[in-house]
Amino acid sequence: MIELPFGRQEYDIRLRNIRAEMQRRNLELLVINDVANQHYVTGYDGWSFYTPQTVLVPVEDGAEPVWIGRAMDAAGGLLTAWMTAANVVGFPESYVQQTDHHPMDWIAEWIVAKGWGGRRIGIELEAYYFSPKAHARLVGGLPNATFVDADLLVNWVRVVKSPAEIDYLRKASRLAEAAVKAAYDVIEPGVRECDAIARIQAAQVAGSREFAGDITALPPTILGGENASAPHIMWSDRRFGANETIALELAGVCRRYTAGLARTMQLGTPRPEVTETAKAVLEGMEAVLATTKPGVRAEDVEAAWRKVIERYGLKKESRIGYSIGVAYPPDWGEHTISLRPGDKTVLQPGNVIHSILGMWMDGWGIEVSETILVTDSGNETLTQLPREIHAKS
Amino acid sequence: MIELPFGRQEYDIRLRNIRAEMQRRNLELLVINDVANQHYVTGYDGWSFYTPQTVLVPVEDGAEPVWIGRAMDAAGGLLTAWMTAANVVGFPESYVQQTDHHPMDWIAEWIVAKGWGGRRIGIELEAYYFSPKAHARLVGGLPNATFVDADLLVNWVRVVKSPAEIDYLRKASRLAEAAVKAAYDVIEPGVRECDAIARIQAAQVAGSREFAGDITALPPTILGGENASAPHIMWSDRRFGANETIALELAGVCRRYTAGLARTMQLGTPRPEVTETAKAVLEGMEAVLATTKPGVRAEDVEAAWRKVIERYGLKKESRIGYSIGVAYPPDWGEHTISLRPGDKTVLQPGNVIHSILGMWMDGWGIEVSETILVTDSGNETLTQLPREIHAKS
Repeated sequence: MIELPFGRQEYDIRLRNIRAEMQRRNLELLVINDVANQHYVTGYDGWSFYTPQTVLVPVEDGAEPVWIGRAMDAAGGLLTAWMTAANVVGFPESYVQQTDHHPMDWIAEWIVAKGWGGRRIGIELEAYYFSPKAHARLVGGLPNATFVDADLLVNWVRVVKSPAEIDYLRKASRLAEAAVKAAYDVIEPGVRECDAIARIQAAQVAGSREFAGDITALPPTILGGENASAPHIMWSDRRFGANETIALELAGVCRRYTAGLARTMQLGTPRPEVTETAKAVLEGMEAVLATTKPGVRAEDVEAAWRKVIERYGLKKESRIGYSIGVAYPPDWGEHTISLRPGDKTVLQPGNVIHSILGMWMDGWGIEVSETILVTDSGNETLTQLPREIHAKS
Repeated sequence: MIELPFGRQEYDIRLRNIRAEMQRRNLELLVINDVANQHYVTGYDGWSFYTPQTVLVPVEDGAEPVWIGRAMDAAGGLLTAWMTAANVVGFPESYVQQTDHHPMDWIAEWIVAKGWGGRRIGIELEAYYFSPKAHARLVGGLPNATFVDADLLVNWVRVVKSPAEIDYLRKASRLAEAAVKAAYDVIEPGVRECDAIARIQAAQVAGSREFAGDITALPPTILGGENASAPHIMWSDRRFGANETIALELAGVCRRYTAGLARTMQLGTPRPEVTETAKAVLEGMEAVLATTKPGVRAEDVEAAWRKVIERYGLKKESRIGYSIGVAYPPDWGEHTISLRPGDKTVLQPGNVIHSILGMWMDGWGIEVSETILVTDSGNETLTQLPREIHAKS
């Protein structure tokens, strides 16, 4: 048994919150397809989601959730999830990647045998790794069930973090800082991007002396030279130039809890507009931090930022932040709170927001971010590192 | 512009092969949702698939494919894909992760405006980042289209590798060997798993002096101690013990082309059954290599392996290999050829198979694999490293 990241009581609270929402929506069974949500509910942890994998939560208090995945991976379920062995279920190997039968056929039969085939079922319909074919086969195998979209039901339960979760996010923040420092250290003119990424990832994964680092849901992005205009390009063997602005979008992860941290480096001489834009972005971050507190709407935080950059004659189309917490690839955002116009979510203590101010211009870019905890009275920046552009020649 | 991994002629051949199959199936448009297939067809490369992203291939010869993704990432499309700017299309930021409108609404409108709204459309329905909701919205927005399942159409085109692809797989094999050697070097009693992974990933990513390494579609797995019974568990801060059998399942990646390589290490004294099982596995790999050649069926290769291990009184439920090539997380298998009973695919020159002989027993496990190219006359093992259990005290 691998040590669970949380005590059993924490999982009980999560289930209670999820079931309260299920009852409100009159759901008798929840089908959780999002891997981060599966982990949040069961503790299950493994790189097994490339074959269908689901977690079932019956609405009855006290009933354990059920993990169902590939037979080969049920062993990992027994090692990592907290449920009894009867609720860690493997579908047979003969169902893996076949054309004539599908794991969801088997899972539907299992649900019927369990007596849940006639239930009103909430199901996550926009989870990564849950395909249209899987959904069609599940629905086809449960003709007596009623299906209701339950996307983000669990994600919205996740938006308020417990003290134990915040503790992991603090540790993750230390690793995010270490990753940025590793980047500052290794990147210089003539160094290859791939060699820089190797050093950065090593810092992320090795972690600290006290705890391990985990895989980040997005790989490190270091955007230099003309690539800096494109926010999600991957590294190559390109060498950093003598005069280059480099945006670093990194993270630290402890037991799947993710703190994001973006900073910008300058090799050699910056273009004049880099310095001016950096000034706007730093002032914008001050406005974000001055605004973020309980009772404020997500869109109000964005408005405060926008007011600053408009004064500098700048514009940004995309949102400037999102809820962050437990994460698996390909995304560390929780898909709930977004700092953008129209998001009327009222911030509350325990929310954790990764506010990322990325300006991708024509041939260069600047990014600065913080992972911010909403506290009872205001906020606390979990990530701690000077925000100014890090100059190096 | 980032240098394309292949010349334009290679992409023309790929499109020709895909269109031949589209014509055979009477498809007028192909909707490619698999990220590896998108890259295979367009060269597009970026970590942007956490919002909907698709590639459209009209059946007409000479027409360019169209990449559609988040507006922010169209800049990356211009840098990495070979099409003209008109065929790199961004949906507006206002469609990102909203509840009332969906990127696929916008994409459906785009398809209608293009005049393709009444077409017979082949669509990949089991791609990792294509959700049931995305599919429903696309179908809803194209009421005059006919949809046909086109899962694996492109994957089956990919099963025969070109000389240029094989060249990348050779380079990837060098990095896979370097990753295993790094593991041999760093792992010893008392070392933490996370520190070992940091070293292994650094070797994978930094690559060689001549070329960069890329992210592996599955993270490195090192299975030691009781975790070895579970094939896809992630690392932690656990320390390797004095007497431990450790299965290493690693890879090397060059320009997204992946070579898999699994080996087993022994710290201290092995249990007697480890030595016996290793003997069976090594003999089994000889049988795999003696059988793999053009004209043989995939299931015949598995039968040769099974014959060997049955002689040792062993059994393995899961397949012993699969087609491998271009890959993105979460999987490096191509979901086409599988070495298992019932797979009657006839092997042909240019197939590349990752044959992985993994025996996960109760509390320990052994893995040995090779990435094998089917040649005109037989096969060539692309990965080159002694197969015996690597003993270290």
